[in-house]
Amino acid sequence: MNRRLRLGMVGGGQGAFIGAVHRLAARLDDRYELVAAALSGDPGRAAASAAELRLPRSYSDYREMARQESARPDGIDVVAIVTPNHLHAPVATAFLEAGIHVICDKPLALTLAEGEALAALAKRQQRLFAVTHTYSGYPMVRHARALVAAGELGELRYVQVEYLQDWLAEPLEASGNRQAAWRTDPARSGQAGCLGDIGTHAWQLAAFVSGQLPETLSAELHTFVPGRRVDDHVQVWMRYSNGARGALVASQVASGEENRLVLRIYGSRASLVFSQEEPNQLWFTPLAGQAQRLTRGRSLSPAATHATRVPAGHPEGYLEAFAQLYTDAALRIHAMQAGVPPPTETDDLPCVGEGVNGMRFIEAVLDSHRAGGAWIPL
Amino acid sequence: MNRRLRLGMVGGGQGAFIGAVHRLAARLDDRYELVAAALSGDPGRAAASAAELRLPRSYSDYREMARQESARPDGIDVVAIVTPNHLHAPVATAFLEAGIHVICDKPLALTLAEGEALAALAKRQQRLFAVTHTYSGYPMVRHARALVAAGELGELRYVQVEYLQDWLAEPLEASGNRQAAWRTDPARSGQAGCLGDIGTHAWQLAAFVSGQLPETLSAELHTFVPGRRVDDHVQVWMRYSNGARGALVASQVASGEENRLVLRIYGSRASLVFSQEEPNQLWFTPLAGQAQRLTRGRSLSPAATHATRVPAGHPEGYLEAFAQLYTDAALRIHAMQAGVPPPTETDDLPCVGEGVNGMRFIEAVLDSHRAGGAWIPL
Amino acid sequence: MNRRLRLGMVGGGQGAFIGAVHRLAARLDDRYELVAAALSGDPGRAAASAAELRLPRSYSDYREMARQESARPDGIDVVAIVTPNHLHAPVATAFLEAGIHVICDKPLALTLAEGEALAALAKRQQRLFAVTHTYSGYPMVRHARALVAAGELGELRYVQVEYLQDWLAEPLEASGNRQAAWRTDPARSGQAGCLGDIGTHAWQLAAFVSGQLPETLSAELHTFVPGRRVDDHVQVWMRYSNGARGALVASQVASGEENRLVLRIYGSRASLVFSQEEPNQLWFTPLAGQAQRLTRGRSLSPAATHATRVPAGHPEGYLEAFAQLYTDAALRIHAMQAGVPPPTETDDLPCVGEGVNGMRFIEAVLDSHRAGGAWIPL
Amino acid sequence: MNRRLRLGMVGGGQGAFIGAVHRLAARLDDRYELVAAALSGDPGRAAASAAELRLPRSYSDYREMARQESARPDGIDVVAIVTPNHLHAPVATAFLEAGIHVICDKPLALTLAEGEALAALAKRQQRLFAVTHTYSGYPMVRHARALVAAGELGELRYVQVEYLQDWLAEPLEASGNRQAAWRTDPARSGQAGCLGDIGTHAWQLAAFVSGQLPETLSAELHTFVPGRRVDDHVQVWMRYSNGARGALVASQVASGEENRLVLRIYGSRASLVFSQEEPNQLWFTPLAGQAQRLTRGRSLSPAATHATRVPAGHPEGYLEAFAQLYTDAALRIHAMQAGVPPPTETDDLPCVGEGVNGMRFIEAVLDSHRAGGAWIPL
Repeated sequence: MNRRLRLGMVGGGQGAFIGAVHRLAARLDDRYELVAAALSGDPGRAAASAAELRLPRSYSDYREMARQESARPDGIDVVAIVTPNHLHAPVATAFLEAGIHVICDKPLALTLAEGEALAALAKRQQRLFAVTHTYSGYPMVRHARALVAAGELGELRYVQVEYLQDWLAEPLEASGNRQAAWRTDPARSGQAGCLGDIGTHAWQLAAFVSGQLPETLSAELHTFVPGRRVDDHVQVWMRYSNGARGALVASQVASGEENRLVLRIYGSRASLVFSQEEPNQLWFTPLAGQAQRLTRGRSLSPAATHATRVPAGHPEGYLEAFAQLYTDAALRIHAMQAGVPPPTETDDLPCVGEGVNGMRFIEAVLDSHRAGGAWIPL
Repeated sequence: MNRRLRLGMVGGGQGAFIGAVHRLAARLDDRYELVAAALSGDPGRAAASAAELRLPRSYSDYREMARQESARPDGIDVVAIVTPNHLHAPVATAFLEAGIHVICDKPLALTLAEGEALAALAKRQQRLFAVTHTYSGYPMVRHARALVAAGELGELRYVQVEYLQDWLAEPLEASGNRQAAWRTDPARSGQAGCLGDIGTHAWQLAAFVSGQLPETLSAELHTFVPGRRVDDHVQVWMRYSNGARGALVASQVASGEENRLVLRIYGSRASLVFSQEEPNQLWFTPLAGQAQRLTRGRSLSPAATHATRVPAGHPEGYLEAFAQLYTDAALRIHAMQAGVPPPTETDDLPCVGEGVNGMRFIEAVLDSHRAGGAWIPL
Repeated sequence: MNRRLRLGMVGGGQGAFIGAVHRLAARLDDRYELVAAALSGDPGRAAASAAELRLPRSYSDYREMARQESARPDGIDVVAIVTPNHLHAPVATAFLEAGIHVICDKPLALTLAEGEALAALAKRQQRLFAVTHTYSGYPMVRHARALVAAGELGELRYVQVEYLQDWLAEPLEASGNRQAAWRTDPARSGQAGCLGDIGTHAWQLAAFVSGQLPETLSAELHTFVPGRRVDDHVQVWMRYSNGARGALVASQVASGEENRLVLRIYGSRASLVFSQEEPNQLWFTPLAGQAQRLTRGRSLSPAATHATRVPAGHPEGYLEAFAQLYTDAALRIHAMQAGVPPPTETDDLPCVGEGVNGMRFIEAVLDSHRAGGAWIPL
Repeated sequence: MNRRLRLGMVGGGQGAFIGAVHRLAARLDDRYELVAAALSGDPGRAAASAAELRLPRSYSDYREMARQESARPDGIDVVAIVTPNHLHAPVATAFLEAGIHVICDKPLALTLAEGEALAALAKRQQRLFAVTHTYSGYPMVRHARALVAAGELGELRYVQVEYLQDWLAEPLEASGNRQAAWRTDPARSGQAGCLGDIGTHAWQLAAFVSGQLPETLSAELHTFVPGRRVDDHVQVWMRYSNGARGALVASQVASGEENRLVLRIYGSRASLVFSQEEPNQLWFTPLAGQAQRLTRGRSLSPAATHATRVPAGHPEGYLEAFAQLYTDAALRIHAMQAGVPPPTETDDLPCVGEGVNGMRFIEAVLDSHRAGGAWIPL
């Protein structure tokens, strides 16, 4: 087995949410060692957070971190960026320019232009730029993608994806919740609220499994909670090149829902249904036929097998899916360091190109919404 | 118990589908006796069909039937209209003019104007005009409506209704299937294909439970099967007066789906989910809370209790829901015949007004579709 | 279509439960006309109940009814017996002796000896004796039986059947509930409480689908509710001739359960699971394979098709299953009256032989329980 | 945060199964560092396995390992024992005698006497002896236990636990499968096959949640696969001190089942159902009431909260449950090292006492089986 990669992190200090998830994910498959971080821009908080995590090297300035780490012989191989959205681009730029691989949370950036610049930079620097679209890490999502790619669904007809939560159903940002505060602040989150936070996940999941991007979309945003400065509800229609139709809805005000991300894909020969809250199974139903419940561990596509750790009937979950992205990233980085092509089993790792697609989606939705739902090409 | 009402039927001869369902439904609660019918416009088929059903009186001309039955001392009290759509209005008109109550399948008519004329005629004649929106007969649908009416969901936020089937995923109309043939023939089905056939059910269910009609809608139709002359896929967005949003999809080309009619209603305080394929249960989930599985027989709203026959755990289904409409109609007709107000427990019976709403929906969707998805007021 | 059979009923007057279910079931498929009944042994109640049902002929003495009906040219063809258990045998005897076919509720009788005498009498009189083991009427139960018979499961290994309710979790019989009163009164219900009431259903379902009776059983009964005079909880182990094992549990004190009758059959090649509360589906899973959700309407065994009325996705339920037994009985009676062999599609109708098996089960369980769980041959 | 504990491992080399699971579990919450192991008794395999895991210190003799590690200043704090069953007792003895804490897989030992000796030794040495009954680590299992302890179910009535798999439905041990080989070899697995492998999990889960052990049991074992030397199917009845009943079944030949561990507990006031394959939810249903689906992340007992990492709707699974045991063990060891009482939130960690209960269960089942199902006190 290869050595553990040296991992750095920017963001994710005390009071943060997704940073801890990244750390769990990086740890699970034992391919990383977290050795350095700028957990907060506030020096006190950064130091306290680092101590709590027993980190050897702590920074409060990510530029300084990029500089110093790239200069050390034992500097980090790769940095995980888990800051609020507005910092994704500057932080990623700093590390890429320092020659350090990047694993970045989504959405990729604040604007499409920013995103495209990152993609160009990553290419120029020949560095990995993974984007943590977590749900791509589920074995049954990968199996779904493999089934579509193998033509099992026939011609695409209808894609329905919904992502419903209720955690922002009330004005949480007004009551001191840090997560809610930055996610509803356009300066830190971007112009897209729910759209950027979970709409991009739904979009990516549909594209990842269907293997297609729509040609055009029509969208409307809505804000249900009075005083909120970003959207908390998104509806999108899509049209695909072959005439297939799609519908996407994302909402953070759907009372009672925890994290309902459901994808349904209908083809001319069969359909697939995946529900994130029950990720160990995938439903496959032929036209005029009967549903088959495909389960993780008994679905033998190489893609699904590659992403599974324990036998069928022993559920894996969200952290395992997240860990899979980290594992794929590690396999890619080792290959790049060795100067060999990336292993084919890492083909399912979402990278900066998918992040750019997400930004394109955000901008198209915003454009369509402003134009009263006009159909916008992608 | 009141005497059995004398029931007539127009349509529903050999090879038909929904006529047999109406007969089962009329029989279940023992409030009707089928005594006369014009089962087909073809005299031979009408007679053969009537003999098979052991019917005392058979006609092949519905006008003749209306005339003769209204003249007999033991003539029918009420007629069930189960013809293809284009005959709903002329048949209903003939019987209403003869002073006979009507139970009519949906969609109500070919056009909104026709539908409105029927509503006016029923009012003028002081006759019942029930429309068989079957799904309104389910106890848990009625319980859902009662919960919304009681304010349990808070303010309406998002209504999602989908009705997906796969039976028309291939060009069945080209292979001699009689059901497919008339349903895809604009002359008999009207301009709305899937839209009229199941879209109206989805629309009615959402309105029935939410207690609201949207103010405006935006829609697109699509035809997936080459050569088909009507739509087989419908997508609609809705906006409600309080700003609530809605999304409706109906498709008859959704591979693998049998009869997936699912309604999700999200309010500011709680949500409801009903799935027609599992009609003995209803999910109720408070904001930030945990789902409750409400079951038929243990849900004690008067509306649900009125519509249930056997104890909890003994499933009732589609025919029982259909029978409930017949029972409610019988209770109404007896009240009308007795000159007393209709019993309050029949308030949930869909009548011609809801049929007119369905026609209004169809026309608005057609208008919006032709206008490239423009928002159309209802 | 054949003429409607003239149906009589004994039991089922005001305040009764299962009588109304039999009437709904007899009506659904339009093969019967209820024309005479002894709805109660109390003349006043019998008359009032008959009037409510608009019955032409009412009796209060079932012997008198058997005598008179057999003497009339338009007398009943068949009688439905829906009394408490202790009357099953005397009533059935009276009608069989009068040459009238019988449809009887379960358990068949109070003792095995009584049951065997009924079977002998029915054979001697050459009359139909159907026993309403309702769950045999479900299409997916019949499909399950067909799959087992076709060898799809391989060799039988393990049969698990459970029937759990909570309606007797408290001493309902002490609070005036008539259903609870007779069902917990050994004089009317027999020595078997829960054992006879629902244990026999579980037993019959397992035998019906597996196509086998165990060779021996070991059992224990328990009474949880203080003061109750019969068992309210039953546990049974079974051994089959090929070494297969079985476990049966029936309980009427299982808090929260409505009518949980679940059958799981494991063979050397595959397994089947049927849950009565979701009767439109059946799960089939091959060894090391993935579950298939077989649905009513898309499962094309002749046995399932024969027992279905409406298309896939339009749920049928308990009353339809019950009606199927009445329909099968009608088909049999018409064949007997015509002197032709019974139609093969009625092979799934439970008759007096299965009723006798049920009595044999009851006595074996009682014997084993008294002997401290000793293994008792059947 | 405390320092990482230094972890050792015995067993779990190349080709093993559960060792890798222990390592994943130990890593997840970052409380351990694996620094030494005797991964195999074969020196070559031990070394190769250790290299693959980048282990600093590798042994092939566990006694040597215990000796050396206890002598080092940086020796291991705790050892994980993941060998076949027959080595549990000798290995645990060696490490306990060396003063090293133990985390041991189940079943605890080959015999009850061995198990009791281990318990006594752990007590004498004042060392932690955790037993990895994984399913106790699920948040919803802990929540269930808390609900029972709080009296929410009323008085216990019926406990039903089943654990069904199909992986040994065929003679896998004859085809070179190493897992199957040792698990069906009495010399390595003990006399209990399925009984020890998964029956003990079912037993422990029932006891853990119900808070009670039965007073007596009656059991039978069976071997379905010809030539197999241990049982592959177990059935047990239980009686509790208050008269409550229980039934346990465990089978490794149940075609189609992956890892179906389901616990149902019925009390006089309510019931609970937990299914291991859907571990993020727990069903709670009051007597005569409606089911509530309690979910991880929204079930706020301290016990459940302590065992959860990510928000509701983000599924956790088997590895997280396993990791929880490791975390609880770490919290206990730190407390012991600090000389303070164990934190109350670790009360749910299964320790050697539960392991002894498991051995008592195995011996009682074997005794009852040999005595033809006689009731055996525990």
